[in-house]
Amino acid sequence: METNTSQSFTGKNKITMKNIGIPKGTRDFAPEEALKRHYIFSTLRSVFEQHGFLPLETPAMENLSVLLGKYGEEGDKLLFRILNSGDFLAGVPEEAKQESQSLLPYLAEKGLRYDLTVPLARFVAMHAHELVFPFRRYQIQPVWRADRPQKGRYREFYQCDIDVIGTKSLLEEVNILQIINDVFERLGIAVTIKINHRKILAGIAEYFKIEDRFYSFTVIIDKLDKIGMENVIAELQKNEFPTELIDFYKHFSTEKPTIENLARYFENNYTIRQAVSELKFILDHAKELNLMYQPVFDYTLARGLNYYTGAIFEVVAQNVQMGSICGGGRYDDLTGIFGLPGYSGVGISFGADRIYDVMETLQLFPSNLVKGGDIIILQFEDSDLLSLFRIAQMLRKNNFKVMIYPEAHKIKKQLSYADKLHFTYAIMQGSDELKNNQLAIKNLITGKQITIPVNELHFLTTNDLNAYFETS
Amino acid sequence: METNTSQSFTGKNKITMKNIGIPKGTRDFAPEEALKRHYIFSTLRSVFEQHGFLPLETPAMENLSVLLGKYGEEGDKLLFRILNSGDFLAGVPEEAKQESQSLLPYLAEKGLRYDLTVPLARFVAMHAHELVFPFRRYQIQPVWRADRPQKGRYREFYQCDIDVIGTKSLLEEVNILQIINDVFERLGIAVTIKINHRKILAGIAEYFKIEDRFYSFTVIIDKLDKIGMENVIAELQKNEFPTELIDFYKHFSTEKPTIENLARYFENNYTIRQAVSELKFILDHAKELNLMYQPVFDYTLARGLNYYTGAIFEVVAQNVQMGSICGGGRYDDLTGIFGLPGYSGVGISFGADRIYDVMETLQLFPSNLVKGGDIIILQFEDSDLLSLFRIAQMLRKNNFKVMIYPEAHKIKKQLSYADKLHFTYAIMQGSDELKNNQLAIKNLITGKQITIPVNELHFLTTNDLNAYFETS
Repeated sequence: METNTSQSFTGKNKITMKNIGIPKGTRDFAPEEALKRHYIFSTLRSVFEQHGFLPLETPAMENLSVLLGKYGEEGDKLLFRILNSGDFLAGVPEEAKQESQSLLPYLAEKGLRYDLTVPLARFVAMHAHELVFPFRRYQIQPVWRADRPQKGRYREFYQCDIDVIGTKSLLEEVNILQIINDVFERLGIAVTIKINHRKILAGIAEYFKIEDRFYSFTVIIDKLDKIGMENVIAELQKNEFPTELIDFYKHFSTEKPTIENLARYFENNYTIRQAVSELKFILDHAKELNLMYQPVFDYTLARGLNYYTGAIFEVVAQNVQMGSICGGGRYDDLTGIFGLPGYSGVGISFGADRIYDVMETLQLFPSNLVKGGDIIILQFEDSDLLSLFRIAQMLRKNNFKVMIYPEAHKIKKQLSYADKLHFTYAIMQGSDELKNNQLAIKNLITGKQITIPVNELHFLTTNDLNAYFETS
Repeated sequence: METNTSQSFTGKNKITMKNIGIPKGTRDFAPEEALKRHYIFSTLRSVFEQHGFLPLETPAMENLSVLLGKYGEEGDKLLFRILNSGDFLAGVPEEAKQESQSLLPYLAEKGLRYDLTVPLARFVAMHAHELVFPFRRYQIQPVWRADRPQKGRYREFYQCDIDVIGTKSLLEEVNILQIINDVFERLGIAVTIKINHRKILAGIAEYFKIEDRFYSFTVIIDKLDKIGMENVIAELQKNEFPTELIDFYKHFSTEKPTIENLARYFENNYTIRQAVSELKFILDHAKELNLMYQPVFDYTLARGLNYYTGAIFEVVAQNVQMGSICGGGRYDDLTGIFGLPGYSGVGISFGADRIYDVMETLQLFPSNLVKGGDIIILQFEDSDLLSLFRIAQMLRKNNFKVMIYPEAHKIKKQLSYADKLHFTYAIMQGSDELKNNQLAIKNLITGKQITIPVNELHFLTTNDLNAYFETS
């Protein structure tokens, strides 16, 4: 409708089926997958809205000035850049044309969104004067990364984020735990919620005087679940971290410490005391709220991103190895980089693609989710189309999903179509039924068939329909 | 959660609020707009699913080999191209580096989706052997065009398409009219649905022997509503179309012909007779179905895209000038270009952005759509947070949208927040109420306040809550 172009589909540039495809790392979602994905998105959306979060949507493209430098050097390389339109070489100095790296800045000034966090920070910084704080937003949109595609890693995937910006209240951390709990309870995924505090890690670094190597320290610690304590200790040694630090990890190598253990071990460290007190508030409230999934303290949880400053969360599924399916934490200065300092916030991101894989592996999707509709109306050579349309109209008014098979094919063919698309009922009205103002309904699962007056459709509900088949 | 990058938000590349922004022609959708847009999308989705359409999603990026040549030369220029990753200049011959046009093919092999029709054709051609035909899919996704931005025209906008592929049955045309009717009836937009048939235009061209200039002919005719019959005739003359053709348009210059008029005028033309018979079937059924919005035959409706071969539709709002808000038609060979000939289909596209503008202009959005939630729980210095959390939990179980204000700010400040976010009720529980296991609920619209036992929340519905305030 927005198109007003000419000469379309004229056969120029004709290519055959053999050489069509989609870019690597991207996916088509056929109806079955799309319905299941929508089920995840709408569950998330519903829980988010129940907690007073409101939707935000940002453009797929951002200016590169907004994106560059926010994800590290590696991240800059993974940005998809949009080639400038028109004569993009105009005015480019000859020497810049000799090398990709030198030409790059001239070719593109826009890139595809890499995550939803930087666009959020950019949005809040741009609109701080109009927004009402604390600003609670959710955002469910795709992001793009020019990563090497591999199992479970795509170049286009969805992030589902919630963030509260403009309050330091720990109530929001408790709230986040409630949301994580509610989402996975509704989806039927048994999860383990890990929790830690960046100040635990910062305090350890302070205590052992390795603040200047904090980042590489957290990278090693973060690997614990993957490579085991022995290898973590080996890496710490290889990287010449102090013996005292290594002794500390050896001390807890067989059993992870509780927060009380840590509080005792580092009793004079203010940073750790602070973290412990915050974590206790959060954990105590979660306990009293009887959440089905209680957070478990894990002193090795680090989370990659350096902007976290408070509590951090990570969620894994209990019954399948799929890595983290949700994670986040508190940050003290997300919007500072865009010139708006002093806004503390807390947020988490649900990974829809991995959640999908978990649900598919554990067969957690509702069985009636994937279907072409509730009722298919079959067509005979002598069908009165108008009557079929009216039947469909009545049923749709009562919220049934209904289609009329568009041609008077052999009934076997129509039923096979209904079967492949998982319709529950088929309606048939031949000339006899039409004369008597009746129709036949066949339950496609049980094979049972009944005949009812057309008039009864006016107030027919799903329950009525089920009842017909139970009592007949 | 998918991020594992380093050195983020470190303050390098710090830019100030002054130079942040978004690419021209793109938009942020703040919560109020996002909620309203979601209302449109979910209405469309719901009507589509009621008619047995299933969702399809395709990647934002397509290979340029799929996109190029499908939208005419002009369209090719409007494609956003994705710069190849890595060393994109490697192996590019020196002479190609001298001009944008010659360098272009080396720089990009992917582009952003320009519409949803070509990706559909590509998907169907790729998966024809697995799909069940007739294939009924809907697709609601953004598309991108490097068009000059102007009022109502964006570089990123949503298309909402439905198509049925693999049947020639006219039943689907009637169905499409029912869907258009249902969508706009639900949204509350009074519309005019125009209908024509490409074979009316083809027949006219045949009759006056201008088949070789068919495209430029339709382009002029299509302008009628914009420039008036006088100017159309002038343009036809300027372009030296035959006098007989011009006489024909003069003949109907004061009143548009009915299909019966045309049938009589061209009574020996087989093509027009065929079109008239199909249109009669469609219009008669629409009439008998008592659709609120009846299609109106308009012999000048042409629709831009050349791939239409049968009935064509276009919808405009009655009470505001906004151009076409929905349009489509039947095509005989959409997938042929991808090596899969012989699949007839019919489809329409709803323009969500224009529908939004119409609804905003005519104030058709439900008044209770935009709100932070139903209930806000206020916080006092002496509040028992656990009790507030439990109250929120109970209310959410009963489907209320609830947030707890995260800090014990002055009540005036909290109420102002509630007001700005359009909450309907505020709950307060000071130490007195807590002692008596009670809470106070204030209706923020009327200002009325009542006190109820906490236990009553367990089974509280919206109706109960409203009733409390009516009877108290």
